[in-house]
Amino acid sequence: MSETQIGILLVKLVIIIVLARLAGYLAEKLKQPAVLGELIAGVLLGPSLFNLVHETDPVLKFLSEIGVIILLFLVGLESNIYQLLKVGRASFIVACIGVIIPFLLGYFYFIYSGYSTFVALLVGGTLTATSVGITMRVLSELGKTNSEEGRIILGAAVIDDVIGLIVLAVIVGIIGSGHVSLFNVFKLSAYSIAFLVGSIYIGIKFVPRIHKIVHKLELEKTFVISAFIFALVLAVIANWIGLATIVGSFAAGLILERSEHKEHFEQKMKPVADLFVPIFFVMAGAVMDVRLLNMKILLPIILITLIAIIGKIVAGLGAFGTKANKFHVGLGMIPRGEVGLIFATYGLTYKIFTNEVYSVLVIVIMLTTFITPPLLVQFMKKGKAEAKKGIPNVS
Amino acid sequence: MSETQIGILLVKLVIIIVLARLAGYLAEKLKQPAVLGELIAGVLLGPSLFNLVHETDPVLKFLSEIGVIILLFLVGLESNIYQLLKVGRASFIVACIGVIIPFLLGYFYFIYSGYSTFVALLVGGTLTATSVGITMRVLSELGKTNSEEGRIILGAAVIDDVIGLIVLAVIVGIIGSGHVSLFNVFKLSAYSIAFLVGSIYIGIKFVPRIHKIVHKLELEKTFVISAFIFALVLAVIANWIGLATIVGSFAAGLILERSEHKEHFEQKMKPVADLFVPIFFVMAGAVMDVRLLNMKILLPIILITLIAIIGKIVAGLGAFGTKANKFHVGLGMIPRGEVGLIFATYGLTYKIFTNEVYSVLVIVIMLTTFITPPLLVQFMKKGKAEAKKGIPNVS
Repeated sequence: MSETQIGILLVKLVIIIVLARLAGYLAEKLKQPAVLGELIAGVLLGPSLFNLVHETDPVLKFLSEIGVIILLFLVGLESNIYQLLKVGRASFIVACIGVIIPFLLGYFYFIYSGYSTFVALLVGGTLTATSVGITMRVLSELGKTNSEEGRIILGAAVIDDVIGLIVLAVIVGIIGSGHVSLFNVFKLSAYSIAFLVGSIYIGIKFVPRIHKIVHKLELEKTFVISAFIFALVLAVIANWIGLATIVGSFAAGLILERSEHKEHFEQKMKPVADLFVPIFFVMAGAVMDVRLLNMKILLPIILITLIAIIGKIVAGLGAFGTKANKFHVGLGMIPRGEVGLIFATYGLTYKIFTNEVYSVLVIVIMLTTFITPPLLVQFMKKGKAEAKKGIPNVS
Repeated sequence: MSETQIGILLVKLVIIIVLARLAGYLAEKLKQPAVLGELIAGVLLGPSLFNLVHETDPVLKFLSEIGVIILLFLVGLESNIYQLLKVGRASFIVACIGVIIPFLLGYFYFIYSGYSTFVALLVGGTLTATSVGITMRVLSELGKTNSEEGRIILGAAVIDDVIGLIVLAVIVGIIGSGHVSLFNVFKLSAYSIAFLVGSIYIGIKFVPRIHKIVHKLELEKTFVISAFIFALVLAVIANWIGLATIVGSFAAGLILERSEHKEHFEQKMKPVADLFVPIFFVMAGAVMDVRLLNMKILLPIILITLIAIIGKIVAGLGAFGTKANKFHVGLGMIPRGEVGLIFATYGLTYKIFTNEVYSVLVIVIMLTTFITPPLLVQFMKKGKAEAKKGIPNVS
């Protein structure tokens, strides 16, 4: 990498961070979450207009990955494992409904449009998993990460990431060999559950002891580093199992939330987050290429987006028996992201999807991402205003 | 960039940061600066042993660049432009002697060893410019950045970076066309001086006004971002002129040192620095490949390293008329780095250097880097102890 290439990347980085901050500021002025501004900044910087930021750039891609890892680490730090477990049943049902309905709707829409079973299966899979980053960022901006809705969404998103992974393994198995490898399904499920339960259980049990060692080694001044490393290590393990990295860093946050130094971690990680998190959302926006939009694919885009939205709104009903607003939970589950893109990219790479189907799916994923922040602000703020009249919120 | 590639890079990042911290800790236990440990960690992770970290990896290279940019930004924040100007004359003379002596010694050593003029010219150039990162990190660990010696070294290193750049332009001109383009030399000199004087003058004059705008835009919470961006922007401009990026971020630090929010910037940037700065030193260590060492090139390595050391020790005498310890100033100027590697790489790329000459020079650059931290600690700590008996230090 030459000095010139470094220079060019530095320029891109400056433009990304500055534009993200300005767009975020403008969004806030328009009573929208900052993240919406950052996504739009991404669209402008991407192939749609300035063609400056590409999803394929390894350095920017890696920085954005660090950003979302830190974001979910902080979300974990703001969450509480026991409160999450309290809504565990609701989260699980929401996750299951939110996988099944969009999958079936997507599958049958494509079957009835005359596509093959393979295409329909992969489309169904693409529509399953929620991208928790967007929703958590919005909830965090609204100070609602710890609300009952927030906790249910968070739990459901982690669970549906695991389910999405298993669904992918099943579909890849069917497409590859024509049959489902039960062993693979079992292995993945076991790994995922073992990772989540194991890391959190062991983590909470041993973190005080590790603290003592760190303290003894006079490494207190490296608290930030140890927190960051801890998040990265769990992210790496999650990635190695096949889960999203953010599931790992979220678990790390949950574990350190139990630590007596929680505030310290939060305070020190915030400046790092301020720098990196917007890069993730700009890169997420840059995936969208508005030039791909044309009249021919407009109807499928609208219909599949509706499927994606309705599937998750219905899933919100799974939160029965809790005080949470089911509609808000459903809204929070709408955004699709990484896992959906993995499905779509798999389809394109193995020539199961045409470029057109791929483009439609990527645009649907983007639309679910763009539509959620304003919807959440619209409805949850109203909810908050009502709540204020009644019992005051803890958040 | 696939999920797997991201996973591998995350693993590398974790290993780099953890090993850098452990090695830094061990170095401190052995009364050595942490940076020496980080450099050795780099050697172990590089091609010499584990072969895990490569200078050519674009992501790691970029992260390390961000690290050294932040380091010099913080050094700038700890410096004071007026105190630097006070020792300006000394810095200038130290820089000039420190360019001329190593250049001439290197040139004649190679001429008398039977090499061509081109080879000798490039070798001379390789030995000129000081890499300020190492020394400043050590001085910062010793709390001596603001000592008279520290200020002279810092000024001299910036000046000799500019001179090194001009020398490169001259040599490239001679090798390319057989004659020196006076216009190019003039252009580079003018740009460099205009950048340094201009940015610092304008910066100090307008920073309070920019603060007011930032404040008005309710962007106070983004102070870290604005400071980081400011450092990056000046780094980019410096890079664009052809100077080292760190000259730009150092100027940014100097400017913001004059701001009323200086402490705030420092406090918020420290956690970011803790994460990134060690990456730079690990990558610097990873350039060294101990497998290149063999008996045949041992004598030239020793002799050229001596030339590199003696040239800068003599340069320290340029600090006459100041209270600074001339020997300490000379020691602080010993490490060579980026500019030297640029010369050496140029020589290899254009087939002026054989692989052997190139390897010798890279090893010499590494040796000057490795030798300085223990020397500085050895002699400056003693100096400190003596100073304590007399007038107490401000640092």
